[in-house]
Amino acid sequence: MTAAPVRVGVIGTGNIGTAHARALARTVSGAQVTVVHDFDGERAGALAADLGARSVESADAVFDAADTDAVLIASPDDAHAQQLLAGLRSGKPILCEKPLAVDEAAALSVLDAEVALGRRRVQLGFMRRFDPGYLQLKAELGEHGIGDPLIVHNIHRNTVAPYGLRTEETLTNMVVHELDISRWLLGEELVSVLVLAGKPSPHTPAGEHDPILVVLESAGGVLVEVEAFRQGQYGYEVACRVTASHGQAVMGDGSWVTRSKDFSRGVAIPELWLGRFDDAYRRQLQCWVDALRSGSTLPGASVWDGYAATVVASRAIDSYRSGRRVDIELPARPEIYS
Amino acid sequence: MTAAPVRVGVIGTGNIGTAHARALARTVSGAQVTVVHDFDGERAGALAADLGARSVESADAVFDAADTDAVLIASPDDAHAQQLLAGLRSGKPILCEKPLAVDEAAALSVLDAEVALGRRRVQLGFMRRFDPGYLQLKAELGEHGIGDPLIVHNIHRNTVAPYGLRTEETLTNMVVHELDISRWLLGEELVSVLVLAGKPSPHTPAGEHDPILVVLESAGGVLVEVEAFRQGQYGYEVACRVTASHGQAVMGDGSWVTRSKDFSRGVAIPELWLGRFDDAYRRQLQCWVDALRSGSTLPGASVWDGYAATVVASRAIDSYRSGRRVDIELPARPEIYS
Amino acid sequence: MTAAPVRVGVIGTGNIGTAHARALARTVSGAQVTVVHDFDGERAGALAADLGARSVESADAVFDAADTDAVLIASPDDAHAQQLLAGLRSGKPILCEKPLAVDEAAALSVLDAEVALGRRRVQLGFMRRFDPGYLQLKAELGEHGIGDPLIVHNIHRNTVAPYGLRTEETLTNMVVHELDISRWLLGEELVSVLVLAGKPSPHTPAGEHDPILVVLESAGGVLVEVEAFRQGQYGYEVACRVTASHGQAVMGDGSWVTRSKDFSRGVAIPELWLGRFDDAYRRQLQCWVDALRSGSTLPGASVWDGYAATVVASRAIDSYRSGRRVDIELPARPEIYS
Amino acid sequence: MTAAPVRVGVIGTGNIGTAHARALARTVSGAQVTVVHDFDGERAGALAADLGARSVESADAVFDAADTDAVLIASPDDAHAQQLLAGLRSGKPILCEKPLAVDEAAALSVLDAEVALGRRRVQLGFMRRFDPGYLQLKAELGEHGIGDPLIVHNIHRNTVAPYGLRTEETLTNMVVHELDISRWLLGEELVSVLVLAGKPSPHTPAGEHDPILVVLESAGGVLVEVEAFRQGQYGYEVACRVTASHGQAVMGDGSWVTRSKDFSRGVAIPELWLGRFDDAYRRQLQCWVDALRSGSTLPGASVWDGYAATVVASRAIDSYRSGRRVDIELPARPEIYS
Repeated sequence: MTAAPVRVGVIGTGNIGTAHARALARTVSGAQVTVVHDFDGERAGALAADLGARSVESADAVFDAADTDAVLIASPDDAHAQQLLAGLRSGKPILCEKPLAVDEAAALSVLDAEVALGRRRVQLGFMRRFDPGYLQLKAELGEHGIGDPLIVHNIHRNTVAPYGLRTEETLTNMVVHELDISRWLLGEELVSVLVLAGKPSPHTPAGEHDPILVVLESAGGVLVEVEAFRQGQYGYEVACRVTASHGQAVMGDGSWVTRSKDFSRGVAIPELWLGRFDDAYRRQLQCWVDALRSGSTLPGASVWDGYAATVVASRAIDSYRSGRRVDIELPARPEIYS
Repeated sequence: MTAAPVRVGVIGTGNIGTAHARALARTVSGAQVTVVHDFDGERAGALAADLGARSVESADAVFDAADTDAVLIASPDDAHAQQLLAGLRSGKPILCEKPLAVDEAAALSVLDAEVALGRRRVQLGFMRRFDPGYLQLKAELGEHGIGDPLIVHNIHRNTVAPYGLRTEETLTNMVVHELDISRWLLGEELVSVLVLAGKPSPHTPAGEHDPILVVLESAGGVLVEVEAFRQGQYGYEVACRVTASHGQAVMGDGSWVTRSKDFSRGVAIPELWLGRFDDAYRRQLQCWVDALRSGSTLPGASVWDGYAATVVASRAIDSYRSGRRVDIELPARPEIYS
Repeated sequence: MTAAPVRVGVIGTGNIGTAHARALARTVSGAQVTVVHDFDGERAGALAADLGARSVESADAVFDAADTDAVLIASPDDAHAQQLLAGLRSGKPILCEKPLAVDEAAALSVLDAEVALGRRRVQLGFMRRFDPGYLQLKAELGEHGIGDPLIVHNIHRNTVAPYGLRTEETLTNMVVHELDISRWLLGEELVSVLVLAGKPSPHTPAGEHDPILVVLESAGGVLVEVEAFRQGQYGYEVACRVTASHGQAVMGDGSWVTRSKDFSRGVAIPELWLGRFDDAYRRQLQCWVDALRSGSTLPGASVWDGYAATVVASRAIDSYRSGRRVDIELPARPEIYS
Repeated sequence: MTAAPVRVGVIGTGNIGTAHARALARTVSGAQVTVVHDFDGERAGALAADLGARSVESADAVFDAADTDAVLIASPDDAHAQQLLAGLRSGKPILCEKPLAVDEAAALSVLDAEVALGRRRVQLGFMRRFDPGYLQLKAELGEHGIGDPLIVHNIHRNTVAPYGLRTEETLTNMVVHELDISRWLLGEELVSVLVLAGKPSPHTPAGEHDPILVVLESAGGVLVEVEAFRQGQYGYEVACRVTASHGQAVMGDGSWVTRSKDFSRGVAIPELWLGRFDDAYRRQLQCWVDALRSGSTLPGASVWDGYAATVVASRAIDSYRSGRRVDIELPARPEIYS
């Protein structure tokens, strides 16, 4: 671990890209940011100046730069697949924000490219796998804890949907987190999905549905429910209850302070997801950098995980459209992801 | 309320019948127990002696007795319908333990009999409607609270299934409580049901399923989930979360004491349902007696409510057997239940 | 328990007296209200009419009435001692609202009178001894629970002090509940008291103190703290933490419903004590009536308990005035209270 | 922040020193460990090898080394004062584990030396000031929160006292954390202290006291209570309740997971303080390194804070010995700490 710092190039300097770049430069041990790119060159330039990096004209230039050892992709969702393909050609390790791709075909092309390369180069930014809450939840499972999981019930609420609400997007952008974290919690693939439209809240646009209920089944028969509500009004919330053969464990939001005021006793609810998963983002970056420096296996979600989540989300859309339970089929898992 | 005490006859002196009889004699204001009957005459005799009542040879004799103003039925489930029909002929008001009947046809015959009588005589023992927890939960709903309900999620756990486990019984005996309380919370009928078999716990007999997930839809489009688990091992638990248009309310178990011991901080979980719903049983009896004495409308679940719950449970069995979502149809609600 | 109902006379028909009278008439099994008295004859008359009782002109007339078997005193605090002395002369059992008396000498005179009578006739209305919260807390103590109590920490908050605030009244009217319940929890007398004036809240009148901290020591060396705050603004709260040799138990308010709304998750706090101790009042009355009917020992606080609380409150006033820790001395406990 | 990494020398490689050194080398951004020293040269050598640093023979050599920009002191408590004096002569910035010194005179000598130097060079390791729990608690105070603090109640429990129990040590080593954090929460000095010995737990050695209750008063009249219990058996716990003019806030332990098992529902309690304050230690180091790199003011506890805590702990020992409330007097606060 006394190796030189990892020199990271950052593609995409919007909110999340900027946050990642700052963390790499200032909070994560053993990393520095050397190159940044954004389609808005001015924005990239300002961040570069702030971090002592330089900005370049294209994503390809980030991969090609002599002074980048690794690349972080935080560009718009629909640019991920193409940039990942370019990145895999460069051979440099990549941490890419979720999703892997916006459709199944594109996701498969990235999977194929990495498999062709013969080794894992890409880690996907499903940061919940590094969240203290989920890690503690997973530690409760098993023989010495609450036993074998039987039902997983997820609550996922946003406060409002500021950029409009399309139900299919609820599945691909919001529920996709539960698709991944359920697979991770259970260590099993999901084999069927049923999407049920709930009574629309007064803020739901005509023709769309919010909240929705997603019911999945895992290969081992575990039922996984996701109550997704994008306009919950009361605040941001993520919770997960695992009912197991000998007990039950519920992950909440780790509140520190209980306040009594105005005839109410309770905890503050955040408005956005940022406060809730701050530490997960930091730990994800640190683990990635540590793995790069030590040469050990990438610790987070793989391209296979990103591909599986994309396929399940696609089948969820099929179920939403048809109102029927839909089977999910995945190809055999390639060796390099075993 | 200065009227004479209500003289109650009790049919069935098993656990719950005995508890009800004792409560009527000693805890409920304005009631006394005058006559009891049980197929086990010795047991009935002992209770009668304890309460200063007399025991009789048949259920009919309880209805016919000159010294009973009202009758409480706590006999085995499959005797309810016939005794209710006899009771309706006697004209005396009846509080009958749930369920109304063990099958749909029998339930309908009771409904028809009461409707023919032209007025409500029977209250059904869905005691959760008198539980402080559910009452507080219902009080949270609506415009000045959390808004319009959109999703109702129920947790129902038993510790073990001491008399064997048949999945259909889970629906008719256990989940039937959620079927009723959801209708009461929402003020709407349920119009479809889907039963999903979860991964069986290690204690589940071959060919049966436990836990199960029941997903219902109300006339107004509200989704109602019930996670029922009869062999949860960790204890008895009933919880209900209502997600509404502007907020969320969760009913738990109203624990008073938090204990820190042996590296764990928390509350005790009961082993059986008795402690949990003690107060609901007492309030139910008091409200029934008060209504009888004041001549006001019966405050609890009606025969219609019992009939509706039976129909929904029957459709749930259909769904369990077929694996499909099943529509629920009820006849028009008779005038006297409006 | 098949004895005739207990005919209760009620002295004092203000808020609490009226609530008790209604409960005896309508909620408590085995009791009826036959006679009432209040210095406001019109108020007494209206209540009597409502309950099918008659109203009389004096407290003495309640004790003397041929149709009262027992008497409940809910008159103003400063009338308690004199009415208790009259009641003891009548020989009828009495349930008297706390406090026993407003000063030490008057309390002693009641104690002496009952001791002279040679048996317990009076139960004092320290209703917390019947509260489900405190009962569960006490059940946690001891060898099979959290062990031997070492520290008892009490929180007691009112919302506002609507009738003005005098610090000595905080001790005699508010903290007196903790003085009694601590003795009951520990089964020991209190032997010293220290009152510390905290920083006054902005609502505290000049020359007075609110909040205050009371630190007591029991005969066995247990430290008992009471944080009393009469103008806490946020609502009404009573909580108690017992730290013991092997664990800790905290009694809160047994909330059923957790509400998420407006970026806050939590439970409602009551504005007044009524909701909090409703059930304790009902159970207290039922236990008293049951004891009267069965002839068993009075179940609640005795005159000795009332006397001890008065003495401790008096020493607390001494400590408040002097700023010093003050020893508490009680005479030997008379036989009839052992 | 693009400056070169801070090269830190570490004095003392016991448990906490090793943890700090590893964190500086691997988790804290912008730091590296170049030199270590321990009286156990072998232990120091092993750590140095692991971190790519070198070990030296004396503490002075760490301060004198050309390749250290700053020094972290984690030696035994009684070595702190002398090493700080040496460090101040070297002019290098120092982060020193608490306490500042083991007696008042030694603490004063360090204070005098830094004041003579004319600027702050030393940060003291009161890591609770960086704990998310305390930071959230502090954010609740004030006009837009719960108002002006009136009472601060602290719970501090250890599981056992593995190295024996001396009551005075409870004050200087354990309660000293609450002495500091209360001053930080209130922004005021403490002006009096009273130590009350509670009933000894069964594990307390003869002549010692555990638990104890410490009652302090701040310059502004706020009462601060500390319930310290070193052999609480049930686990490690730190909690703090602030009662303020318009509400109340309680800091607990930020648990993520609630587990239901074996008839108990609750959260795990740690056995030691390490898990509880892990993040506070990390943030403390990162803030210190950030301040050194940016040249901004040291962010944590100052020598003045360490001196004040030592004085209050000394007066607490006086109170424990005498059983009386003892006034606390501090000299005027030197300019450089304003």
